[in-house]
Amino acid sequence: MRMSARADPAELTAAALAGDRRAVARLISLVEDSSAALREVSALLAPHTGRARVIGLTGAPGVGKSTSTSALVRAYRARGQRVGVLAIDPSSPFTGGALLGDRVRMVEHTGDPDVFVRSLATRGNLGGLSWATPQALRVLDAAGFDVVLVETVGVGQAEVDVAALADTTLVLLAPGMGDGIQAAKAGIMEIADILVVNKADRPGADHTYRDLVGALRLAGPARWRPEVMRLDAVSGQGLPELLAAIDRHQSWLESEGALRAGRLRRASEEISQIALAGLRARLGDLDDGHRLAELAARVADGSLDPYSAADTLLSQLRTASPAGPTP
Amino acid sequence: MRMSARADPAELTAAALAGDRRAVARLISLVEDSSAALREVSALLAPHTGRARVIGLTGAPGVGKSTSTSALVRAYRARGQRVGVLAIDPSSPFTGGALLGDRVRMVEHTGDPDVFVRSLATRGNLGGLSWATPQALRVLDAAGFDVVLVETVGVGQAEVDVAALADTTLVLLAPGMGDGIQAAKAGIMEIADILVVNKADRPGADHTYRDLVGALRLAGPARWRPEVMRLDAVSGQGLPELLAAIDRHQSWLESEGALRAGRLRRASEEISQIALAGLRARLGDLDDGHRLAELAARVADGSLDPYSAADTLLSQLRTASPAGPTP
Repeated sequence: MRMSARADPAELTAAALAGDRRAVARLISLVEDSSAALREVSALLAPHTGRARVIGLTGAPGVGKSTSTSALVRAYRARGQRVGVLAIDPSSPFTGGALLGDRVRMVEHTGDPDVFVRSLATRGNLGGLSWATPQALRVLDAAGFDVVLVETVGVGQAEVDVAALADTTLVLLAPGMGDGIQAAKAGIMEIADILVVNKADRPGADHTYRDLVGALRLAGPARWRPEVMRLDAVSGQGLPELLAAIDRHQSWLESEGALRAGRLRRASEEISQIALAGLRARLGDLDDGHRLAELAARVADGSLDPYSAADTLLSQLRTASPAGPTP
Repeated sequence: MRMSARADPAELTAAALAGDRRAVARLISLVEDSSAALREVSALLAPHTGRARVIGLTGAPGVGKSTSTSALVRAYRARGQRVGVLAIDPSSPFTGGALLGDRVRMVEHTGDPDVFVRSLATRGNLGGLSWATPQALRVLDAAGFDVVLVETVGVGQAEVDVAALADTTLVLLAPGMGDGIQAAKAGIMEIADILVVNKADRPGADHTYRDLVGALRLAGPARWRPEVMRLDAVSGQGLPELLAAIDRHQSWLESEGALRAGRLRRASEEISQIALAGLRARLGDLDDGHRLAELAARVADGSLDPYSAADTLLSQLRTASPAGPTP
């Protein structure tokens, strides 16, 4: 199906559901731009969502996330599954866009119609991940991708957010990238379902592996005890074992009802974020009435503190017109 | 004055205003913990705020931000000014706190009672900077620090936020850290008041300098045309010239009314952030009524899209009890 230059949202959504890659790409762009059509598209996609398995991949810069993502894509393709990849790049006003740019290692999949790779910048987010990430995930899910890999660099809030979004979260480490036990003690277990020691052919990999296994043994009883896996993403050594570990985690999720629980949390977070964005827009609308400007002047003068100013602003919000918030 | 272990907010604030360093430290901790006393403290501080000059310092990892901050502290101290430093560190669940840890280069100022250095983690933020940053800034301002340096690594949203907070924003670059023109083209001019080529003794520094000057010449007319300065923070070479450039920018800010305009924007943003946090808490309260859980279940099932769910949630918020939002 060929898309016209200005296809309407319904037409675009229908094409994406039918597997049209260009329509998928355009829907994600639409989502990234927070287009007015977003609400309509979201409603059209909803009945087709909930099928894709979402695998999060995070870790410090340099541990080999892109190579590992690419290896996983290869492995899932070998099983005949369609794979979507959302690569979340920290952006910066220095570059104006994705910091890491095009992912060279993804090039091996460019010819494959059943692989869809998209970079999303984190700019203008409300936390770590791009605002658009959950919505882009819904597009790929509805478009029939069986597995969606969400890859993000482990800096700041993004890795916590990716764990909230994913059914299974892989945390990558590499030998010599810091003390494994320290990492494990400091909360890595809270987000990792599977710890992956990548670059397992390098010196020190066994040491990192044993540190992590030891630290996990010391950890208290958890509902799911994270597994530690070794991988050499470049050669593919350890890849079948990693896939098997992901399968074990997903079986466990299903048997325990944890898949459903995680997805409820994800939906709940998504609704809250959208509601907050609506409220934020609403606050902006109030500013047209110069109320915020007036309060800001008093705070800048020191005649009012910002908490009291916020209270005043919120009381305005409650007594303002009953019309819904700006989408 | 010695503080008791559980000083009340009024006592603590009075001590901080009188210059007690321990009271300042404890007030900032109180701010970081979003303690219930925050509102009271904020109101007590308000009449004493608005005096400090706020200088933001940002740049990519490795350009020498800490060394430059330390050099600036030395220079302002030589002028007899009291200097506060807020060092914003990206945090991570891997470390559970500040990623960069204690700032070794700040050690030279530890004995000086008129220098106060504090690291703030970015964890749990609503953007790039720590939620606590503007509040910690108010504490230092009220406590009589003439200059407050806010240093943050140039990754993600933090550098945009620091520019919004600062009167004068320095963007640091170093030779060989990427193409100066590219950086300049891509939006660096939007946030930088002064571009600092640090490590100016290194090969390539002249090239980076000329690139930036050239790029600025190509830029359209701006109210303030960013200056490009050379610095070798380690030796202090270029430091007096940098200080003079900061002075020029601050004189310009005052003569143009831009200082006031910037502070109004800062206050406005601060009020909005506090109001949004209140609304967020309010949304959380609604969840006690299981409304969000019910909506999340329908979104997870695909029978409702998240935008319609958010609308429903917000209509609840408007018809809920008229009591103010949870602080």
